[in-house]
Amino acid sequence: MSAALEHLSELLLPAIEAEMKAVLASDDPRYQLYYGMMHYHLGWADQQLGPAAGQVGKRIRPLVCLLVCDAGGGDWERAVPAAAAIELLHNFSLIHDDIEDDSETRRGRKAVWAVWGITQAINAGDSMFASAFEALARLVDRGVEHRTVAEALSVFTHACTELTKGQHLDIWYESQTEVTADQYLGMIAGKTAALISATAEIGAIVADATPEHRRHYAEFGRNLGLAFQAYDDVLGVWGDELSLGKSTASDLLNRKKTLAVVYGLAQSAELRELFGKPEIDVPRAVELLDSIGARQYALRTAHQYSDAAIADLEAAAAAGKAGEALRQLTAELIRRDK
Amino acid sequence: MSAALEHLSELLLPAIEAEMKAVLASDDPRYQLYYGMMHYHLGWADQQLGPAAGQVGKRIRPLVCLLVCDAGGGDWERAVPAAAAIELLHNFSLIHDDIEDDSETRRGRKAVWAVWGITQAINAGDSMFASAFEALARLVDRGVEHRTVAEALSVFTHACTELTKGQHLDIWYESQTEVTADQYLGMIAGKTAALISATAEIGAIVADATPEHRRHYAEFGRNLGLAFQAYDDVLGVWGDELSLGKSTASDLLNRKKTLAVVYGLAQSAELRELFGKPEIDVPRAVELLDSIGARQYALRTAHQYSDAAIADLEAAAAAGKAGEALRQLTAELIRRDK
Repeated sequence: MSAALEHLSELLLPAIEAEMKAVLASDDPRYQLYYGMMHYHLGWADQQLGPAAGQVGKRIRPLVCLLVCDAGGGDWERAVPAAAAIELLHNFSLIHDDIEDDSETRRGRKAVWAVWGITQAINAGDSMFASAFEALARLVDRGVEHRTVAEALSVFTHACTELTKGQHLDIWYESQTEVTADQYLGMIAGKTAALISATAEIGAIVADATPEHRRHYAEFGRNLGLAFQAYDDVLGVWGDELSLGKSTASDLLNRKKTLAVVYGLAQSAELRELFGKPEIDVPRAVELLDSIGARQYALRTAHQYSDAAIADLEAAAAAGKAGEALRQLTAELIRRDK
Repeated sequence: MSAALEHLSELLLPAIEAEMKAVLASDDPRYQLYYGMMHYHLGWADQQLGPAAGQVGKRIRPLVCLLVCDAGGGDWERAVPAAAAIELLHNFSLIHDDIEDDSETRRGRKAVWAVWGITQAINAGDSMFASAFEALARLVDRGVEHRTVAEALSVFTHACTELTKGQHLDIWYESQTEVTADQYLGMIAGKTAALISATAEIGAIVADATPEHRRHYAEFGRNLGLAFQAYDDVLGVWGDELSLGKSTASDLLNRKKTLAVVYGLAQSAELRELFGKPEIDVPRAVELLDSIGARQYALRTAHQYSDAAIADLEAAAAAGKAGEALRQLTAELIRRDK
């Protein structure tokens, strides 16, 4: 990690974690499991609800919020409740995604539903959703003006809707044989990019940035989100070559219609045939994807969005160490410096 | 229905319905099913997403919001987005409840999950949750001050959390053999009463009522919710005697731990034994509940809360036709006039 990003992360991440913990604190014994399931999902507790030394998420979304607020000339501490709200919203969607995808593990541990059952897990996701708005409402306690809170609320709620729309398309496309790259990009625009756009825009709103800068930051977040997802899709097929911690071609085994796959399915009849079989021939599928340049296509797409994100930061005049950190974060997310 | 309530309902209900429809409108073909499932659940569409002549819900919660706003001296039209938000929030919880309770029907039609499957239904509930906040954010468009919107947001988010806490207790108590009446009342305070309290309080907030009146309206809603649920529990066991449209003792068949049952289980070893068997002897269970006065206990509880709700309206100085309508609504919900 580069110096400015590392230095600021050390400062900001504990503030984000403390705010989330404050929102999810309770000493009422009736709600021990209610909060316990959320603590577990966030990596703070183990299955017995004792303290966990486990890995927490990367907290990229809330980090972007605070960095934008700082780079936009604001006081990042005032944006902390919004940053926490964004991370809680993201985690609500993960709890429900795991149920919907029948996915038993999350960050190397059992998913909430795999520990406490689907009924409790649906409600745990709903509770996390509610807690996100509890966090957002705390902006007032940091002296953020009511007008600003109302603007943040409007952007935040729009992102919630886009998120569920993206998820709807994702569920729908799973059952479709033909999905175009445009459809796919429209889906991840909702499922991934809308929230990252909102976190950047809300950072700018709390910083009281000009409407023009605010718009550029929103675009920056959107492009960053699309770059991140396109690159993540490449890791899902060619992960072992590019990174650690992902099993080779896991997305292919699960038949996920990621960007490279969608591109490949449109180009290759043989790949369509492979995807039609009960068990997928993964090595052959990777070979085919390579031969038709699907990997290059997905990487090129990631780089295009990443370039656009960097240009948005210039247009927004992202300043100081935080501006530098945002540029580094954008590069790191698609591993250009590694 | 009494005159003031009937007259005002005819005026207010179409405004509530129109606002919800405006929040859930879209002409993007990608989201036809996304919105369609919500339209279906709200009674506006059939399973083919064509127009439905079906029964919509009673919309009591949003009605209370607008009546309180009017009775508190405010302009009810400004509160319409908040009223819509409350009803959408209530309906999000119903969509997820039906999955969690494995309940296949809702208002005489198939539940959303029974039509489109659990995966889509979880997301449809999430979408409805998001739409509730979309509605709330529209208060700004009606000229409601930002400070007022922030206050409404705070009350609304608190109700969301209480709702999920109540649901958590409900799921938990299902698996417990012994649940006390206090535990039960604490559970419905979250699951039912918190939202009705919030709808009344937000009506008062938009009316710019004094802090004291606002507090009385919040208490009114809470007591109304508890009265309503306690009475509904009586209908679940003795419904055919008291009302139409409920099958006799349906709650007993489902072993629901309602107020009368919780009271009965604490008093009667024979009832505990009946509940321990694979198939419940419903006529004998009703006999036992009657013999130990469980019905009288539940009715008395409903009446106590209803009396408290009426007293809260006095304390809040609920005025005019709307004040009268609130008193009538309180009486109607526990059918004292029938």
